[in-house]
Amino acid sequence: MRVIFNEEMQAVADDLDHMAQGVRKAIRGAGEALLNADVEAAQTVIDGDAELDARKDSVVDQCVRLLAKQSPVATDLRVVVSTMRLATTFERMGDLAKHVAETARRTYPASPLPDEAKGVFEQMQEFLDATSDDLVSMLADRDAKTAERIILEDDKLDAMHQKTFALALDESVEMSRQQMIDVVLLGRFLERLGDHAVSAARQVVFIVSGFDPSKEPSRDEEGMID
Amino acid sequence: MRVIFNEEMQAVADDLDHMAQGVRKAIRGAGEALLNADVEAAQTVIDGDAELDARKDSVVDQCVRLLAKQSPVATDLRVVVSTMRLATTFERMGDLAKHVAETARRTYPASPLPDEAKGVFEQMQEFLDATSDDLVSMLADRDAKTAERIILEDDKLDAMHQKTFALALDESVEMSRQQMIDVVLLGRFLERLGDHAVSAARQVVFIVSGFDPSKEPSRDEEGMID
Repeated sequence: MRVIFNEEMQAVADDLDHMAQGVRKAIRGAGEALLNADVEAAQTVIDGDAELDARKDSVVDQCVRLLAKQSPVATDLRVVVSTMRLATTFERMGDLAKHVAETARRTYPASPLPDEAKGVFEQMQEFLDATSDDLVSMLADRDAKTAERIILEDDKLDAMHQKTFALALDESVEMSRQQMIDVVLLGRFLERLGDHAVSAARQVVFIVSGFDPSKEPSRDEEGMID
Repeated sequence: MRVIFNEEMQAVADDLDHMAQGVRKAIRGAGEALLNADVEAAQTVIDGDAELDARKDSVVDQCVRLLAKQSPVATDLRVVVSTMRLATTFERMGDLAKHVAETARRTYPASPLPDEAKGVFEQMQEFLDATSDDLVSMLADRDAKTAERIILEDDKLDAMHQKTFALALDESVEMSRQQMIDVVLLGRFLERLGDHAVSAARQVVFIVSGFDPSKEPSRDEEGMID
């Protein structure tokens, strides 16, 4: 890993690491809320989102100040630009985790999911828990290998997402209209969490290698929903 | 409007204007596809998305080069940073319009919408058509007044979005499971188009006034779906 170019950039990098940890916590908490009807976990995710928002603002501010004061070029510039994008991506992931938590809180003590849907959502959650571990270590170590794994593995999440549609379309699975809506939206939120993880991973590849994989089509275009 | 700080920045601003026009075209085309079962309009939106993607890459590249070569500060720096964010927002709006178009193409020659849902989607579309006109003129003129209108009006779109849920929940409205899925996702796509328009408007306010309204909670948090 290239030595961060100065103390100030190190401070921003620390903030970004904290954001990645915050995202992991939010994803795990949202999963607890959704799959175990844990309303306290839901509330913690919902309340914790403001901190991710504030930290994003702080990271972007620090980056703009760095650009103004230090006029970085080459790799340093790439790191600053990518850091701004990563902060925005992490903030958005926090929003999505919050949506999941809010859905679980709304239906508490019942689950928003019909029993038949729990299996596939458990799989998606397990996938995202592992992805969020990868996000944290990828960022702490500027590890392009982990980043590449995140990018490659996302197809699996898309396949699980397709299963949620198959389930919603299966007339033999009884569900209320509200459950149908929740299955569709929760599936979408979890799939988008994966897309954003891919987007974050591409930024890290960009920082490390200088190659910008964000120029590939965005995940939401590849993993089409229809 | 402040005079753009040099020729190169003017070239990027022109590209960004083109992106806004491309987004308007995509939103209008998606509406034609969705509401008039116009499969050619759908295909045009789907095919046209690659151009928006490429132009986003070009805008971001030009901005990074400008940062490296010119080391802008103060307002100039703000314009460059906001331009990168705007390009990303517009690209995402293109993706969402494409999703709408793809849904319409999939069900062609039928509409994905049950008859009872057409009214509210027509309203949402009309709203977004007007918003996309505003986006183009806001950007061409760096007009903070239009930007503020976009920000303030978005609540109306959120209210229409809520109506799509009410409709999906209304047992007296007959719809197939596939129609239910499409109503929920199409509603979400259109609502998110509005959110991104708000995000673009906030960037323009930031460019013009120096005040960063993106530090307010994101639209997707305000207009909660549950």
